[in-house]
Formats: sequence, structure tokens, C-alpha cells
Amino acid sequence: MMKKDFLLNTELARRLYQSCAALPVIDYHNHLPISDIKGNRRFHNLYKLWVQPDPYKHRAMRMCGVPERCITGDAAEEEKFACWCGIFPKLAGSPLFQWSLMELEDVLEIREVPGKDNWKLIWEHGIGYMERNIISAKSILDRYRVEYASPCASLTDDLAVYGEGGRVTASLRGDTVLLPRREDIQMLEKQTGVTVSNLEDYFQAISLRLDAFRAAGCRFADHSLDNGFRYCREDGRNQERFVRLLEEVDSLREADKAMLSSAVLRHLACEYAQRDMTLQLHMGAQRRTSTRLRKCAGAAGGYAAMGNSVDVRSLTEFLDDVEQQSGMGLPKIILFALNPADHGMLACLAGSYSRDGVPGLVTQGPAWWWCDHSHGIRSVLDHTAVYGLLSNFPGMTTDSRSFLSFIRHDYFRRVLCDWMAERVLRQDMPKSPELLEALLYDICYGNAKAMIK
Amino acid sequence: MMKKDFLLNTELARRLYQSCAALPVIDYHNHLPISDIKGNRRFHNLYKLWVQPDPYKHRAMRMCGVPERCITGDAAEEEKFACWCGIFPKLAGSPLFQWSLMELEDVLEIREVPGKDNWKLIWEHGIGYMERNIISAKSILDRYRVEYASPCASLTDDLAVYGEGGRVTASLRGDTVLLPRREDIQMLEKQTGVTVSNLEDYFQAISLRLDAFRAAGCRFADHSLDNGFRYCREDGRNQERFVRLLEEVDSLREADKAMLSSAVLRHLACEYAQRDMTLQLHMGAQRRTSTRLRKCAGAAGGYAAMGNSVDVRSLTEFLDDVEQQSGMGLPKIILFALNPADHGMLACLAGSYSRDGVPGLVTQGPAWWWCDHSHGIRSVLDHTAVYGLLSNFPGMTTDSRSFLSFIRHDYFRRVLCDWMAERVLRQDMPKSPELLEALLYDICYGNAKAMIK
Amino acid sequence: MMKKDFLLNTELARRLYQSCAALPVIDYHNHLPISDIKGNRRFHNLYKLWVQPDPYKHRAMRMCGVPERCITGDAAEEEKFACWCGIFPKLAGSPLFQWSLMELEDVLEIREVPGKDNWKLIWEHGIGYMERNIISAKSILDRYRVEYASPCASLTDDLAVYGEGGRVTASLRGDTVLLPRREDIQMLEKQTGVTVSNLEDYFQAISLRLDAFRAAGCRFADHSLDNGFRYCREDGRNQERFVRLLEEVDSLREADKAMLSSAVLRHLACEYAQRDMTLQLHMGAQRRTSTRLRKCAGAAGGYAAMGNSVDVRSLTEFLDDVEQQSGMGLPKIILFALNPADHGMLACLAGSYSRDGVPGLVTQGPAWWWCDHSHGIRSVLDHTAVYGLLSNFPGMTTDSRSFLSFIRHDYFRRVLCDWMAERVLRQDMPKSPELLEALLYDICYGNAKAMIK
Repeated sequence: MMKKDFLLNTELARRLYQSCAALPVIDYHNHLPISDIKGNRRFHNLYKLWVQPDPYKHRAMRMCGVPERCITGDAAEEEKFACWCGIFPKLAGSPLFQWSLMELEDVLEIREVPGKDNWKLIWEHGIGYMERNIISAKSILDRYRVEYASPCASLTDDLAVYGEGGRVTASLRGDTVLLPRREDIQMLEKQTGVTVSNLEDYFQAISLRLDAFRAAGCRFADHSLDNGFRYCREDGRNQERFVRLLEEVDSLREADKAMLSSAVLRHLACEYAQRDMTLQLHMGAQRRTSTRLRKCAGAAGGYAAMGNSVDVRSLTEFLDDVEQQSGMGLPKIILFALNPADHGMLACLAGSYSRDGVPGLVTQGPAWWWCDHSHGIRSVLDHTAVYGLLSNFPGMTTDSRSFLSFIRHDYFRRVLCDWMAERVLRQDMPKSPELLEALLYDICYGNAKAMIK
Repeated sequence: MMKKDFLLNTELARRLYQSCAALPVIDYHNHLPISDIKGNRRFHNLYKLWVQPDPYKHRAMRMCGVPERCITGDAAEEEKFACWCGIFPKLAGSPLFQWSLMELEDVLEIREVPGKDNWKLIWEHGIGYMERNIISAKSILDRYRVEYASPCASLTDDLAVYGEGGRVTASLRGDTVLLPRREDIQMLEKQTGVTVSNLEDYFQAISLRLDAFRAAGCRFADHSLDNGFRYCREDGRNQERFVRLLEEVDSLREADKAMLSSAVLRHLACEYAQRDMTLQLHMGAQRRTSTRLRKCAGAAGGYAAMGNSVDVRSLTEFLDDVEQQSGMGLPKIILFALNPADHGMLACLAGSYSRDGVPGLVTQGPAWWWCDHSHGIRSVLDHTAVYGLLSNFPGMTTDSRSFLSFIRHDYFRRVLCDWMAERVLRQDMPKSPELLEALLYDICYGNAKAMIK
Repeated sequence: MMKKDFLLNTELARRLYQSCAALPVIDYHNHLPISDIKGNRRFHNLYKLWVQPDPYKHRAMRMCGVPERCITGDAAEEEKFACWCGIFPKLAGSPLFQWSLMELEDVLEIREVPGKDNWKLIWEHGIGYMERNIISAKSILDRYRVEYASPCASLTDDLAVYGEGGRVTASLRGDTVLLPRREDIQMLEKQTGVTVSNLEDYFQAISLRLDAFRAAGCRFADHSLDNGFRYCREDGRNQERFVRLLEEVDSLREADKAMLSSAVLRHLACEYAQRDMTLQLHMGAQRRTSTRLRKCAGAAGGYAAMGNSVDVRSLTEFLDDVEQQSGMGLPKIILFALNPADHGMLACLAGSYSRDGVPGLVTQGPAWWWCDHSHGIRSVLDHTAVYGLLSNFPGMTTDSRSFLSFIRHDYFRRVLCDWMAERVLRQDMPKSPELLEALLYDICYGNAKAMIK
């Protein structure tokens, strides 16, 4: 199915692709299980490799009416696999159709469109293939020239498993830091030796952990600002709120939680600036949808929705406060919006902050989550090109839980080259090969590399 | 003007169109006057057939400065027709230019672009043509292979006029059910024999009417959630509010009205689920614009505007409550947004709810109202394909008050085939004829048919 | 670099361009310094002509990490110029890359892409060229066939400098009128002889100034409705608020300011209607971003961002109030949205208001500010064509502070013709040359001309 020229629809697109196809991959944000990487987990069937770790596929099965038992329930792996293959032909037009075929062909040399008639053959071919060939975490990272991958870790996670600043380095998922639970605090006290009895203590303990992350090579932190996020400027009462939180987390009303979490976020952003860490803001998810699905599929079960537009006033107040308080301006920031209607607004915001000597201090990130497909990638590129600046674009990251998703870097590069060629051919970009190749290098590799230097 | 290959710009588009052009039409939501259908109204001039029943045309005349007297006022039909033709050349680039020519050519064999020089000729040709040929409600339904049409009826409308579950079946327009006026209650009591003195009574009476609708073949209900709609979860005081409403509708404050109408909507959605009726949510109209135009043109006079984004938190809370309370999950739901900036958000929401064994439980509907043209249809298809699932797409419905609008099913199919061919040609969809033709069948006919089975 | 066929990608586009390329320019909204025009300022180097007056270029420099000293700071002009050239190759894909080359080539016959290696040559070439050739305010207006330009003036600005209704006529920037400061009132009293001690006095004084503006040929007023704007209907207490404002501006709370400024805006709009002035609403800027940049770059320093969607309920209430209160309906209104996600909503709103005999009473304006490039222009045209009416489109205006920006009228016409040709070729517009050329004439010249007749 996948040909050499897949998605490359013009001669120029194919030529541009030649210049970036073989660049190494820097995947600066994902959710790969570190234990699988460190243990070099080997995969033995297509369900475990291809279907189970990918909530996008679960979602598609639900949309086709597949019973939950065959998605996240107690059906056998083979039956779940059969159900997935059974709905596959219904996915024509969806990016899942494309990715899934790319995954099958590239890693397992399977060139068929799965369906209800051939699923058994594919299943058995997969088992045989994976007996004869080692398909493991490491083999996949190697195959996709992954130079650097940065799975999320919590503030109190053990960093020893990552080893020393190698190809896989933790990035900090900061969400639970904002309103810590009692057990988070206890773990933090244990790790840092700091007794946390007020907000200053808490900040001191955080500081020590951030030093540890940085020492372990961590260069990225990310925060989810979900649908409805409002940033609150300091009102002088957050110390008091924190003490109340320590006593009992439920003692805080929603408005108090918003105040306190804003204060901690602000503080963290300043800390990131001082440690030359890049802050990723993932904005606008509507995670609460079906209570039923949350119960059966878990928090990352593929049923989240897009929220409304990000509140830009909140965002600008947050950035302005950090710029004024960090002592050295803003940290490098990557903005991700889940709702594609925000792509223009975020691309534009990149031009409203700066720091002497730092190109691309604030940039729009790649098409995120539900947006990560040809249509969404083109939307981000279109808006970044004209409202932001393409040469600062940090390039692709998978944000994925599945090892096979690394193939989406290739998907991204193909879409990027096809998009760029279209723009050149209609005279919206210069046709100079030097300028275009420099741009592709920066987008596919150089800008991400600069963040980990 | 309209050629065989109108809007079909590639060889592939033309081939795809061959596979779906002749499929029957299921028009699951419109505002056709049932009396015209049952009486098989015959039309005798172009004003009555072509201009009067189409508020889109009235709107265009206003935008061109035509005096209101010649739109909804007391000018003679011929003068109004002359005014419409007079501005026609100004519509180049508008979908009205295309539809109106399609209507003229297809039904009346007129191939001219109307204008101020030829309006009289066209007017007279129309009168002559309609003398020689019967142009009536039935002839138009036949001409467009309308297998099923579903005009809106209110809860207390007489269903006898629809006859028994034939090609024209009522769909329920539920808006007035949410906050009933005294006369609605009285009519309901009369029809059902239930004395309504509290919310339970009201629900019981509704239940009986829904049974009657269902018995008459009704499979669809629709609700308008206009700009500013907020869903409110139950607070235990809606019984009390309903009693106050019974006493005097104006005794409720806006916040109370929002609470009570949310409660009734929630209840209705559960009832629809139990009766296997599809719920259509038409979201985001800003109906209050010009008080002056409301007075002279009436509630559906073509001067409504688009509202801001639909509040997705409200929508998800509503859907979640219904899923948990209906006893059998959500009814089938079609989401329509008037603001095209919401197309991504709604397409995505389709993946957040499911029911075992029901494909496409929640889907985005076709481009609605002001969006129903090549640009809007492509926007819906683009977003449904990548954020939702194309194979669940329920296809076109006119939502129209004009019989001639059935030609927009053909317009839709042409745009759909042209769009699909473009995507195949740029490798964003597989080129397999079987997959593509199955998709077209489902979109143009199969999915709508499944809702009325 | 710029060829005769720049941006004209089809034979039809090139033919259409022939019909509108040479039309005069009416630039109905800009920020050119009137003193430069009246004094016929001559330019002597490229920094002063090309870089200094263009905040878009400053913004791009910041995004590339150029130190603020070399943008708005105390670096020498030549160094600033070198920095701008140094980042130029990084702008590939940005509209700035295109405009800046058009400016260089068209006015100065320079055909090179600036960079860090050739900046010195270009700098010196510029100085030599400007010695040999007069490059002045007037020479640029002549070169671009500017028939009418309308720089902004405040209500109390001296109108004498504009001379009598010639090619350069003031337009009214009304923002400071809404909540006047004490010095504004004093100046107004001095100019009009009216003692302002209450709101009626204030309105009387405004009335006299508006008469003076109109007598001087002014036909346009503009108001910025920034991100967060909410219109408030009259509550009967604005007289009282105004008296408090007179006493001390800070005595009003935010909610009172919103009420009072709504009242003044409503009054002004009625006054504009009575004087046949066109009201331009510039909506949705998020001007507060970086406090640091505001300090060093000033209020118009190029660091503003896009706000969220315009609140359409506010907008419709405002328009409805004016329609009902002005005694003669709405003034002609042009709507500009900074967030491109609003283009559909605004285009649609145009169809919700009308006045007998006035085509295009309300229309969407051209792509504004950060949207003014190929992508944004196409977005506005796309949405205006299908949700509004193309034949009412008022065409391009620069909104610029730089004389060289007049070349963007040519850029606009090229994009327009290319866009229109595409639509014709895919059968979304009729191919009749008469209809298309009439449309181009109206868009590029006729509709703007009608506003100044």
C-alpha cells in the first residue's frame, strides 16, 4: 500500500523529502512506558504491539459500535484483534487508516488492508513474523533513528530508571504539582528531606526535585490547561490557601483551587526559565465526557473531546506575570491547542513575547492529539507560516503511548514537504532550494535539537 | 448553464458521482408545509415557487438594498420577482447563484442568468411552462426520488394529516416543549386526557404524545440550542419551578428558565432513546438581530446570524447526564453547528460517546443552514473525515421551506464526489473503488436509511 | 524576484488581473503621519523608509531573537538595518518575505534577497538611489495611483493641516471619545465653545466636531472593540456616570466604564448614520501582552495578539439599538475581526441588517492587521463569498503606518484574481467575463468609491 512517494504529490515535494527523510528523530514529548524501554520489551503478537497501546484505535472501534467488551473488556486478544480488523474498512478517509497501514507495512511487511475476511491470516502472519524477527522497544527506536525520546515522568518519580542523560530522558509532567495530594507531599518530603508545612517549603522541595530532573538531563516540562482554564493573578492569599490544602484538599473551593494552582504554575514557569527548560502548554482538552467510559476505559481511554477556545486573556496574563517575575524573562514555551479553530490565535501569540538572543522563545507546537493528521498538520503549518514564523517551528512529536507511533514522524515529514511544495508552486514561498532545505532541517531536526543542547 | 459535469472537476469525481447520483433521497429534516404536500399544491408562477418560500433569497435582496416592500411587503408578485432578478447578477460567487440556476434549469428548463433585462421574459416563460406542465408538491418529490421526507411538527400538532407512515412523516420540533405556554398545556391536556398540575404529569402527557408520534412513524426530534445556550444539571428544584411556570410563565427568572428547560430537555432525550428516535441538535443560531426585520419578516425571515462557539462543557454535561439516566444510554444524536469554526469540535465529540452495537451513535450532521454550500459542505466533510468518521456521516438534509431545495441533494452529492476525488488524488484516501463506493452509498443513503428502519 | 505574474498562477488569473491592476487606490483606513504627507517628507535611507515605520518587521526581528536594542533601542540606523537583513532569510513562508521584496524591488529597483552577506551593499545602494531619485511621501502616493487616503485623526485634532477635501482626508479615530480624559474635554470645550458639564453637553460638543470633520470631507470613523468588549444596553444611569467621570475618571468601576462607553458609542453610531459616514469596527485585538514590550516599544509596537471570538450577542444588541434609535437606521458599517476563526461569523452578520436602497449596508472588511496576507485574504474572500456577498466587499485598505505599504493593494489584487480564477475553474463561480470584471471593479474600486461620493 505505502509507496515510496506516499503523500508526496509533486516532483518538488519528492525532492524536498529527500533532504529531510533521513534526519534523526527527536521526540520531545510522549507517554511511552519507561519500563518497556529499559526492559527492552519484546512484542509477540499484533494486538499487544498494534492495538492495545493505541487509544485512537479504541475510539474508532467505539464509533463503529464495537462492544466495549472487545475494546477494553475481557474478550480475548485475538477476538479484540478481529474486531479491530472488522471495522478497518470503515476507516477510509480517517488518518487512522493511513497510519495503521504504515505501521503494518513498515514494521511487519504486511501489505493488506485488514478486514473481516483476512484478519486471521494477518494475526497468524504477525505471530510468525514476530517469532522470526525481534520486534522490541529498542528495535523500533533504532529503526526510526530516534536520537532522543522524552517520556513523561511525575515530579516524584524515580529518575534512576532513565540512566544518565542518554537517548531516553524524562520530561516532567507537572499537572499533579499544582494541587498536590497528601501522598504527593509525603513522597516529596521523603525524596528531598524538606518538611513541607507552607508554600515556601513546597517551593523549596520542588526546586530540589527540578534540580534532580535537570541533572538527569531533563529539558522539558508540560502542563495541561484543560477546557475552562482560567489564570488568576496573585492576590496575596495563596500562602494561606496552601496551608488549608495541606490540612485537607477538599477544604478549598473551586475559586481557591484556581488561585493556588495559578500561583504554583507561575512559580514553576519561573523555575523552568532559570533551568533553561522548555515549557509545553497543552491547552483546551475537554477530558470529562462520558462517565461510563471513564469508568471502563480509564483516564486516557480515547474518549476525550475538544474544548472551546483557549482564553487568551488568561494566557497573556500568565505569560506577562512570568516574564516580569522570573528574573530572566520567559522560559522557552511551546503552545499546543486541541481545537483547530485556535491555530491562528496561538501562532500569532508567538510574536508577542521575546527575549534578546533567543529565536522562537514562544512558538506554536505541532498539531496535537486529535489534530495530528494531514488536515491538522496543514492547518498548523498554514497558520504558523503567516501568523507566526515557520523557521522557529519545533517540529513533530508523537505524544503517544505506542512505540509504532514513531512512524508518524515520517508521516509528518511527507505532509510537510507536500505542503511546502504546494506553497512554492503557487508562489507563496520562495523557490530557492537553500532556503527551503534550511527550513526543513530546522523544522525536522534543528529546532528540537537546539532545545536539548 | 448547469452541465452534466457541474462541480465534478476530475475524471474520478465524475466516476464516483455515477455511483451515487441516482440513489433515492431521504430528507430527514425540513420545514415543508404539510398542507401543501397533502393537498398536492400546484404552482403557477415563479414567484410562488422559486422566490417566496426561500428566505435565503430574501436575505440576498436585502443585502443588495432592495426595499423591504419588494421583499416581504405589499409589492405585487411580479414586481418582487423583477427585483429578485435585478440583483441576480450581483450574486456571482454566492451559493444562491448556483442553486437558483439549478432550480430554474432542472425544473423549468430555463437556461438563462436572470437580470434586469430578461426578467419579464423569464416570468412569462415560467407562467406558460407551468400551465403546460404540472409543477406541484408531488411532481417535485417524484422528480427528486424523495423516498422519505420529514417535515417538522409541534408536539400538539394533529398527526392525522400525515396519513400512515408513508413517504412523508412528521418529525418532532421540540423547542416549545421545554418551557410550555399555558395554551400548549391546555392543548396537551385535551389530546392526552392527562391533567397537568406538576412536572410528573407533564412528563406523562409528553410520553403519550411521543407514543403517538412514534406510532405515526416519527423517527426524528430536533431541538434548537441557540447562541448562549447553557445546560444546567439537576438541582432538585425543577418540580417547584414547573409549578410556578404553570401559574405564570413570566414568574420565572432567566436562570430558572435555563434550569427548567434543561430538565425537560434531559427528560426528552431519555424518552427519545427509549423510542429509538434520533435527536437532532441545531446549535448556535443568533436569532435576535434586527428588531425591525423581526417585525416585518417574521421569525424565519432570513435575517438570523451565527452565534459564537457552542459551549462544549454544557454539551458534554448534557450528554453525560442522559447517558447515565436514560437506562439504555444515549439516543442516536446528530450535531449541527451554525458557526463553521465549530466543525472540528463537533466532529471530534462524536468519538466521545458510544453504545455497544450502534455505529455512529453521535455524529456531526451535514452543513447546516448558512453553511449549506460548497465551502461549508467541504468544511464539514474535512472535519468529519479526520476528527470523526466519514462512514457514519448521515448525509444531506435540506432543512428547507421550499420544494425546489430538494435539488440541493444533487448539489451535495456533486460536492461530495469532487471532494472525495481530490482527497484520493492527493493520497489522503485509498483509491479502492469498493471502499469509496461503499462510503458514498452509506453517506448518500444507507446511514439515513438505517435511522428510519 | 517579483515577476509580472507574481501570485497569478493560472491563465485566467492573469487575464482577470489585467482588468483591475491599473485601477486607482482608495485607502480608506490608515495611520500615515499627516505631517509627512503635508510636508512631502523625503526619505534618504532604507532604514527610515523601509524598517522603522513598520511594526510587522520589528515583530519578526523579535521572533528571531534580535536584541531589542537593535529594534527599538539606541543602536545606529545602519546596525538596525543590518539586523533586519540578517534575519531576512528566516522569513521564508511569511508574508513579510513577500511584501518586503515587493517594496524593495518596486520602489528601489533592488532585486536581491537581503541577508547577512549583502546588507551593506543594499544599504549603500539605497542611499545612492535615494540621492539620485526623489523618494518622498508624494512620489509614493503618485506611484501607487492613490486617489484617496484617509489617515486617522482624533476628535480634537486640528483639521486645517488636511487642507480642503483633497486626496488626503482625515478619518475619525473615535476610541478616546468613549471615556474622555479631562484634557480631552478641555480641548473640546475650547474648540467648540460648549461648556461640558453633563452628557448632553458632551454630545452637543461632539456633534459640532463631527460637523467640522464632515465639512472637511471626512467620511469614515473607526472604533476598536478589543478582546473582551461587551456592549451594555442603556440602564438610565449614564448621565450620572458621566458626571462622575468629569469629576474623576478613576471614580468609575470597570462595569460603569463599560456602560458609559457603550452609551457614547451608541450615540456616535447614530451621529455617523445621520452624516452618511461609514463606521469601521476593528474587533478582537488583545493589546495587553508583554508589559516589558509596551514599555520599550510603545502602544503600537507590534507585540499585540489576537483575542478570542467577538461576542456576537453584544454586537447584535449594539447594532439593533442603533438601528432603532438613529432615526434613519444603521450607518454603513464595515466589520473587521482580528481572529480568522471569526471570518464566517462576521461575513454572515452582514445579512442580518439592511436599509432600503443601500447595498452592502453592513459588510465584512478586508483581512485585517495580522490577517493581511494571502492566507487571511483568501479566508475573508471565501467566507464573504458564501456567507456574505462578494459584490458588496469594500476591498483593500492598508491600515498601515508605512508609505511603502501601498504596494499591498497590488498584492491584494493579485491574490483576489488568483482566488477568483481558482473558484471559476472549479465551477464555484460563473465564468462570464462581464460578471467577473464587474465584480473586480466593485471590489477594487467601485465600492470604496461609493463610500466617499
